[in-house]
Amino acid sequence: MASKPIPRIVIVGAGFGGLNAARTLARHPVEITIVDRKNHHTFQPLLYQVATAGLSPGEIASPIRAIFRGETNVLSLLEQVEGFDLDRRLVKTSEQEIPYDYLIVAAGATHAYFGHDEWEPYAPGLKTIEDALEIRRRVLLAFELAERQAVSGVATEPLNFIVVGAGPTGVELAGTLAEINQHVLAHEFRSIDPSRTRILLLEGGPRVLPAYAEDLSRSAEEQLRRLGVDVRTNTMVTGIEPGAVRMGGSRIVAPVILWAAGVAASPLGNKLGAPCDRAGRVLVQPDLSLPGHPEVFVIGDLAALKDEQGKMLPGVAPVAIQEGKYVGNLIRNELRGKPRLNFHYWDKGSLATIGRAAAVAQFGRIHISGFVAWLSWLFIHIFFLIGFQNRLLVFIQWAWSYVTYERGARLITGRTDLPGWTGMYPSGSKSAESSEDKTSGSTAA
Amino acid sequence: MASKPIPRIVIVGAGFGGLNAARTLARHPVEITIVDRKNHHTFQPLLYQVATAGLSPGEIASPIRAIFRGETNVLSLLEQVEGFDLDRRLVKTSEQEIPYDYLIVAAGATHAYFGHDEWEPYAPGLKTIEDALEIRRRVLLAFELAERQAVSGVATEPLNFIVVGAGPTGVELAGTLAEINQHVLAHEFRSIDPSRTRILLLEGGPRVLPAYAEDLSRSAEEQLRRLGVDVRTNTMVTGIEPGAVRMGGSRIVAPVILWAAGVAASPLGNKLGAPCDRAGRVLVQPDLSLPGHPEVFVIGDLAALKDEQGKMLPGVAPVAIQEGKYVGNLIRNELRGKPRLNFHYWDKGSLATIGRAAAVAQFGRIHISGFVAWLSWLFIHIFFLIGFQNRLLVFIQWAWSYVTYERGARLITGRTDLPGWTGMYPSGSKSAESSEDKTSGSTAA
Repeated sequence: MASKPIPRIVIVGAGFGGLNAARTLARHPVEITIVDRKNHHTFQPLLYQVATAGLSPGEIASPIRAIFRGETNVLSLLEQVEGFDLDRRLVKTSEQEIPYDYLIVAAGATHAYFGHDEWEPYAPGLKTIEDALEIRRRVLLAFELAERQAVSGVATEPLNFIVVGAGPTGVELAGTLAEINQHVLAHEFRSIDPSRTRILLLEGGPRVLPAYAEDLSRSAEEQLRRLGVDVRTNTMVTGIEPGAVRMGGSRIVAPVILWAAGVAASPLGNKLGAPCDRAGRVLVQPDLSLPGHPEVFVIGDLAALKDEQGKMLPGVAPVAIQEGKYVGNLIRNELRGKPRLNFHYWDKGSLATIGRAAAVAQFGRIHISGFVAWLSWLFIHIFFLIGFQNRLLVFIQWAWSYVTYERGARLITGRTDLPGWTGMYPSGSKSAESSEDKTSGSTAA
Repeated sequence: MASKPIPRIVIVGAGFGGLNAARTLARHPVEITIVDRKNHHTFQPLLYQVATAGLSPGEIASPIRAIFRGETNVLSLLEQVEGFDLDRRLVKTSEQEIPYDYLIVAAGATHAYFGHDEWEPYAPGLKTIEDALEIRRRVLLAFELAERQAVSGVATEPLNFIVVGAGPTGVELAGTLAEINQHVLAHEFRSIDPSRTRILLLEGGPRVLPAYAEDLSRSAEEQLRRLGVDVRTNTMVTGIEPGAVRMGGSRIVAPVILWAAGVAASPLGNKLGAPCDRAGRVLVQPDLSLPGHPEVFVIGDLAALKDEQGKMLPGVAPVAIQEGKYVGNLIRNELRGKPRLNFHYWDKGSLATIGRAAAVAQFGRIHISGFVAWLSWLFIHIFFLIGFQNRLLVFIQWAWSYVTYERGARLITGRTDLPGWTGMYPSGSKSAESSEDKTSGSTAA
């Protein structure tokens, strides 16, 4: 045992998958190197709370090296991985080549614009802390610019917020924006007319939360409407330009447009030389290894694997967590000479929050909506936050917000302009807006 | 009373001065408009805690309109003031002209580079939340890049942090950086050699905290040395370039250089058409009004006023707070027909913190150092934080950090490079560094 070299395990990405793989292997006789281009793990399920100013970035993110402070066999490196040399067993970063005996690639996914990357500056997505701060800046700034416009006596235009895509992130964003509009606007802005503010949730498919059962989709849509969200299903976005969305012939002007419509796997998946699916996910073996490379594993949102019923495992935190633990245990066992077993996902259920006391939950055949679903969501998410301090602070913050309707992290930092909007609409686009506004005014509840 | 028009009061800047003027006037029969280029009030005395990752931005800043949520006669506008028309009584912003009956200019100060603005990108100062986040990014990144350098086997260079200027901000920054170096480095970085890390505090004058009594300066310097700070008084910085500071013939390479050496009044002071002092502060009347314009007041760091002993009032929060309240009360009284009284500053004492359980306090003839001074500092600062929620959260955060030595807000967001440093020193500059390093190595304790 003394003369054998210590196995080196390199983990690319410190999301839920990479973090759980590292935790499972920490304090075992291996050397672990975690490489991430950020210095922190982000608790992605609460990212929408940072985007909507309910929580501060520090409350949902922890430095990777703080998480592994006590585990001296875990080395953390802030580097951008650029590729791999699978034959020589090296991870290539911009700065160096890192050798491995086992490689775990957990590089995750990013938002995708279906071939329309030019939309990104006008409709940011929500995957990182930076994304959340940019969305927060735009949302808060839109209210500020509308107040300025109202005070200076310029004819005010409706203050529209458009969320594209009604998956869990889109539903969370739309619901929370509607709450902000109801509670914050009325109390703090003296001049904006709240009745001219609209939150639109656009979904290409026939229902919101398409991954959930149909009765929960209906319930979620109903809860969204009660919050004042203008939900439009079967609505295809055909163009996004500075401050406006096009849907076929119609066009809606909006100072804030958010993209929650699609994700694509990290481009690192393609650099592993194995077959990928259409979304760029690596088609892995039943033990999550790369075909022909049993020492390389792909986990989390970057991996494409079907369950026993032939259904693709979804890109959610529980899948990544279980995959990370599985690969960590597999390596530990293999180093002790035990054979590999296939990965099995244990589906404990799904939860999606919509707003204050509004959510849907699906635990097998049990479907719950409303306050009880929301409470389950709240406690499960706070419980899984990394680090005790965060949990306590987030809980206090949440309790405070619940009682006072206050949102504590409403800071605008950085630029003070919005694409396509200077506080007054460009006069050239007025006619297009108003024709659409009349149309949508008649369809809105 | 019913037919008389309601007096319009415009306040430029929502720092301590502007905020206290507005609070004094709120709920009185006046219309108040606060114009600020940020949407938040920043509790500047704790800004160094954000810069050193101890607190999150949201914990020391509050949205201006949230502060005045209940005061319906206060309107808040996010705008950049560009000038004044004193004859027509108008404040000019980039978007509009705002009429006033009384004008309170509380635009504050910014850091100044004594004619060397080209130093700013290499040595950021600390005045805004954005500044604090930029400093935090650089400090955390320097440790990350040094770890990367150590791991990749490149010959490691000393990890220097240079703070220029030993006023209260410089002392706070240097002391806190030294603590981070001692406690965080040792536990979380596997490869950096902590003995190669140095915190340098450079001061042009003969002692640190020059505004304090000499015995407290000596005590502060002693406390800094105990924390491991390399204090160098009578040391003039003659040049700052990417990643290096020049002092006469010598040059020290440092991935992080922070500027705490000088402030200048806001350029808005010059636009009031009144005489200013060398630092750009407006020479105000004994009632803080502008000469020839009794309806215009200048308060806080932007005002130059001497006390009864002929000593210039310092640019600190208590002066701004008292001036804001004074002007608010003056206007209230004048509207009721009462005469003006001159402003008198009541000096309640000064407190400067150095680090964990280290501080100095000067209350008249009573001088305190160490733990008791630090406790006073802590409670006074938490007490004056705007908003109950912040106070509670900041207190929990502080208690937690005190027990665990943990710093909760260590997120690197934005760019992942440092000026003049890519993780490895540029080879061309090696000789200059090492000659200086030998020199300074022999003078350091």
